[in-house]
Amino acid sequence: MIEVGIVGGTGYTGAELLRLLVQHPHARLRTITSRGEAGLRVDALFPALRGHTRLCFSDPESADLDRCDVVFFATPHGVAMRHARGLLEAGVRVIDLAADFRLADVAQFERWYGMAHACTDLLAQAAYGLPELNRSAIRLARLVASPGCYPTSVLLGFAPLVRHGLVDAAHLIANCASGASGAGRKADLRTAFAEVGENFHAYALDGHRHCSEIEQWLRPMASDANCLFVPHMLPMVRGIHSTLYARLTATGADADLQRLFEESYAGERFVDVMPAASAPHTRSVRASNVARIAVHRVRPDTVVVLVVLDNLTKGAAGQALQCMNLMFGIDEASGLASAPTVP
Amino acid sequence: MIEVGIVGGTGYTGAELLRLLVQHPHARLRTITSRGEAGLRVDALFPALRGHTRLCFSDPESADLDRCDVVFFATPHGVAMRHARGLLEAGVRVIDLAADFRLADVAQFERWYGMAHACTDLLAQAAYGLPELNRSAIRLARLVASPGCYPTSVLLGFAPLVRHGLVDAAHLIANCASGASGAGRKADLRTAFAEVGENFHAYALDGHRHCSEIEQWLRPMASDANCLFVPHMLPMVRGIHSTLYARLTATGADADLQRLFEESYAGERFVDVMPAASAPHTRSVRASNVARIAVHRVRPDTVVVLVVLDNLTKGAAGQALQCMNLMFGIDEASGLASAPTVP
Amino acid sequence: MIEVGIVGGTGYTGAELLRLLVQHPHARLRTITSRGEAGLRVDALFPALRGHTRLCFSDPESADLDRCDVVFFATPHGVAMRHARGLLEAGVRVIDLAADFRLADVAQFERWYGMAHACTDLLAQAAYGLPELNRSAIRLARLVASPGCYPTSVLLGFAPLVRHGLVDAAHLIANCASGASGAGRKADLRTAFAEVGENFHAYALDGHRHCSEIEQWLRPMASDANCLFVPHMLPMVRGIHSTLYARLTATGADADLQRLFEESYAGERFVDVMPAASAPHTRSVRASNVARIAVHRVRPDTVVVLVVLDNLTKGAAGQALQCMNLMFGIDEASGLASAPTVP
Amino acid sequence: MIEVGIVGGTGYTGAELLRLLVQHPHARLRTITSRGEAGLRVDALFPALRGHTRLCFSDPESADLDRCDVVFFATPHGVAMRHARGLLEAGVRVIDLAADFRLADVAQFERWYGMAHACTDLLAQAAYGLPELNRSAIRLARLVASPGCYPTSVLLGFAPLVRHGLVDAAHLIANCASGASGAGRKADLRTAFAEVGENFHAYALDGHRHCSEIEQWLRPMASDANCLFVPHMLPMVRGIHSTLYARLTATGADADLQRLFEESYAGERFVDVMPAASAPHTRSVRASNVARIAVHRVRPDTVVVLVVLDNLTKGAAGQALQCMNLMFGIDEASGLASAPTVP
Repeated sequence: MIEVGIVGGTGYTGAELLRLLVQHPHARLRTITSRGEAGLRVDALFPALRGHTRLCFSDPESADLDRCDVVFFATPHGVAMRHARGLLEAGVRVIDLAADFRLADVAQFERWYGMAHACTDLLAQAAYGLPELNRSAIRLARLVASPGCYPTSVLLGFAPLVRHGLVDAAHLIANCASGASGAGRKADLRTAFAEVGENFHAYALDGHRHCSEIEQWLRPMASDANCLFVPHMLPMVRGIHSTLYARLTATGADADLQRLFEESYAGERFVDVMPAASAPHTRSVRASNVARIAVHRVRPDTVVVLVVLDNLTKGAAGQALQCMNLMFGIDEASGLASAPTVP
Repeated sequence: MIEVGIVGGTGYTGAELLRLLVQHPHARLRTITSRGEAGLRVDALFPALRGHTRLCFSDPESADLDRCDVVFFATPHGVAMRHARGLLEAGVRVIDLAADFRLADVAQFERWYGMAHACTDLLAQAAYGLPELNRSAIRLARLVASPGCYPTSVLLGFAPLVRHGLVDAAHLIANCASGASGAGRKADLRTAFAEVGENFHAYALDGHRHCSEIEQWLRPMASDANCLFVPHMLPMVRGIHSTLYARLTATGADADLQRLFEESYAGERFVDVMPAASAPHTRSVRASNVARIAVHRVRPDTVVVLVVLDNLTKGAAGQALQCMNLMFGIDEASGLASAPTVP
Repeated sequence: MIEVGIVGGTGYTGAELLRLLVQHPHARLRTITSRGEAGLRVDALFPALRGHTRLCFSDPESADLDRCDVVFFATPHGVAMRHARGLLEAGVRVIDLAADFRLADVAQFERWYGMAHACTDLLAQAAYGLPELNRSAIRLARLVASPGCYPTSVLLGFAPLVRHGLVDAAHLIANCASGASGAGRKADLRTAFAEVGENFHAYALDGHRHCSEIEQWLRPMASDANCLFVPHMLPMVRGIHSTLYARLTATGADADLQRLFEESYAGERFVDVMPAASAPHTRSVRASNVARIAVHRVRPDTVVVLVVLDNLTKGAAGQALQCMNLMFGIDEASGLASAPTVP
Repeated sequence: MIEVGIVGGTGYTGAELLRLLVQHPHARLRTITSRGEAGLRVDALFPALRGHTRLCFSDPESADLDRCDVVFFATPHGVAMRHARGLLEAGVRVIDLAADFRLADVAQFERWYGMAHACTDLLAQAAYGLPELNRSAIRLARLVASPGCYPTSVLLGFAPLVRHGLVDAAHLIANCASGASGAGRKADLRTAFAEVGENFHAYALDGHRHCSEIEQWLRPMASDANCLFVPHMLPMVRGIHSTLYARLTATGADADLQRLFEESYAGERFVDVMPAASAPHTRSVRASNVARIAVHRVRPDTVVVLVVLDNLTKGAAGQALQCMNLMFGIDEASGLASAPTVP
């Protein structure tokens, strides 16, 4: 059994990690820390887990994280980078669900996250945890940066097109929408029910940190890649929907886009290319690790790609577990095989 | 024109007061205060009011509240009681939407609201602002305590039965449910979208402050009145639904309950007794000052009363304006006549 | 492997059965019929199941249901009773998720479901599929009537109290609320999003078919049992919440109710008695087979029991699978062990 | 008083017309027809209107529509075109909220609406009822085609840019999302609560009838105008949000876009150009006739325009009344001045 530790398991990504881990056939949750809830039983905070775990939150100072095989950081940005080195030196693998190791460019990190980076030397060894784009690096990694939820959906949707030079990479548009759980489990007026319910709006029109994460991964495929990213807040709990627009190049205009996507993701367990003419629903992936993609040529020179995923699962905790499975050489789908909950 | 001041207009009841006041034919919003937002335009905080007001929030210290005819307190509990005396002495009428003047019994207030009462001598002159039960006192009052949203619905539903001795007043049950806006406009994890959405639960099983408010008004009608009150949180923004249960006395078992309710509220503009066999929907009163009531004899000895109202309108700001209209001798429905918004 | 057939798998209970069955370690979905969708792949109707099944809907006329070990009817009321005999005679076990075999009293069935009963002789051998109340009969049964979603919650909540004579069984009150999926997957204006969203209301005040189902099971425990049942429609998809009220008898007033419930459900895998002073949230059981119960003595003579369950899982498909597991002598929790999805 | 008739007032646009008309100072609802509900009181179907109207639905055959000053058709597509001529000949003005008179090109109509046009000769005299683009024609019209909800939002957002040649009109993108009430008040599985709730998806990727309506109005401004329109279904009741993307021309790249929009809509009572850097929320216009617009230059060569409106008010009934006010020479805002309901 893989012995697992979680740092900061009181948020929604932490709760989702817990939900998946208690069902994982080859992993055992050994330790979970929380400064604020130390001593409290995990199932007192999350009654949904009653009967599934008897663990209590440990104080981070005294927790035996270094005896774990892998530690997940489900913490705010800036925590993992202060603790990763010690764990790595103790031979523990680290998977950060926050942004500390997502951006290779320190200046970009410091600009978007408003803090100095605490261990820039580790950035080089961190693998970006998007298995469908970076599987071989993840397999070998001791430190994984789990991607943002929006970037996961945008990168999966654009990669086949950009990589093959089929679209004008300099003018990509990602019109995305996320359920409110994407903002985290915290007291915040902006995500109060009476603000989000029966409401819809765009936000972050002046730039979103996920934009540089997206472009970092597209630029090696197309050096001029530039993605306009407009996120919106949905009156629902879980789910991300990305509607991606791109102008086809001459090559792209002649390509069989449906076949391109099917071939690009052939053999992938967690990327489902829908039949032609489909429009995936966010609920079709709820609580599962699957991303579904549909591709539409809507004008001779324009392609629309629709991508859905669950922001807490494929967009966070599920994908992090998928990386863990890869890192430990077990079946990539271990603990992630359950069907989505519909309706 | 009645010159109106609002203290603390940044919550949902304050926003609803603003919405109704900007359309009131005989009132003019003169001053609105907010310590935190002083200097900001009201319509910058509430873009829905763009085009309806050019007012800015004033600092409470320097605001000319004493030049208003009436001041509404849309503040947390405990604010109005510190400022009411000065305004009353300056000849300003005061309507408090919080609980400071709702409970005649100081000990009850201090128990439920956890603070000493700052002006117990004013309690005697405060009129409870539920016009359908207390209209003549409101007309003469200089200080009005606007009722809680739950008590408004429970009292309107039980009063006809209790007053006429038709039910066992010692065993009343009020099973109530409220939309999330009832918890106020604030950062609070418990009312976050991802906590309230797709969820339903009871709360305050060990007692709710609204219980003593309800019983205070039922006891003069039946000295043994005791109301079990179980509130629930609904995954919606606006609306209260009360399902009231009582055992009929021998007299009650023979009574024409439908007629009783129709006669009890005959002539009331804001209480609508539905036809027999109805089940009112909360949305049928959304954004309006109407409470709708249906009465059902469901067993020979048991009556169920269903009451719906909008917690922000008849449950708060609308009812407070109804009181203002009475205090100033104008048409009770001024500014409150618009139809509910459905769907 | 248990070979499973489903008749009528295009509704929500059918979809939930499918979701659970594709993950069941000891059952294999062999056949699923639908007159309307014959020939269509199941995962074309329910894209959430892509990758989990390759089955197509069969025409009911030609399907090999009689070669299954067990057949579930996830059909409208009145279908199973026309087909059960043939299957039973072929040695196939039958589990009906509709009401055909729930009521032992044919007159009650015909009154509430508005149709003549097609096989009254089978009623006597049908076991009511609520394992926590009727496990030994289910183990032996060849025909199981899976309970209604509301009755499951009400019976689990009242049984310990009524069975021990702790409450006035003649005046029970069940104030219940269900998410919209409880009304089934069908075109119906009353459950349209724009009717149910941002709305809440009671319904069926003049009597609901589930009432006689509840009383049929309470009467053997207390011959005068009478349960007033008031259902409400919630603006959410999944979940049932029952707030149960009863007057305590003298014995009941002295009883340790928390202990009573804990002992009543000790060893039950799918009934979770919460710690004292709890209020279970519907989401804490979402997509799981667990019912959570909390008991509160709210006045010296009054008890409130709170029960939550997922109407599609413990309230329908999950409970039916729990019965199947019992009927085939395998672990009762097979295929039902996954944790609820929160948030 | 303007004497008003409504044909087919049982849908959501009909209900919204009723809500607005009962409060209109210069119009009186004289007649409302419904084949299915003839004889029923309007407030029996829509309890929210109790106390606001005593009218009953009339049978369309015998209704005195020809004695009205104006008749609104809130009917399915294809009804108004069969009745408009008779009413016009009787001197009655006609406003159709369906699509019968929206498309000047009969072939386009017949393609998208799948029916032959019954009175092609009337098309020429029909004015498109979008006052901000077509006010003078509406003033003179006897027959008005009220625009679709999506086209209203898209046209208001793109018109200033396209008219001045500031964008590449051949590659416009309209990424739109609508609440479920936009699909009408009808039994339809696709808009059932359990399908739409906690879900989000695109639809009509292969073309939507609103596309030709949008392009019909953009082409006179730019002959190559081509708008890719991707609608999405939101889990909420009311509201449309359009996120519009366009590539700026050289002229556009140098223009002051904020000023352009402010000047374009200066003096408009129902189009609110938000301050720079805003993101309008759909709820900020709920139940009001206002459209709010924000413009963002997000890359040197790309503009994003955000538009929100209430699909039932500015997107349907409110805009139709705005047209009526213009046609009868009264204040354009009569009956439409109330503030949005927030939260």
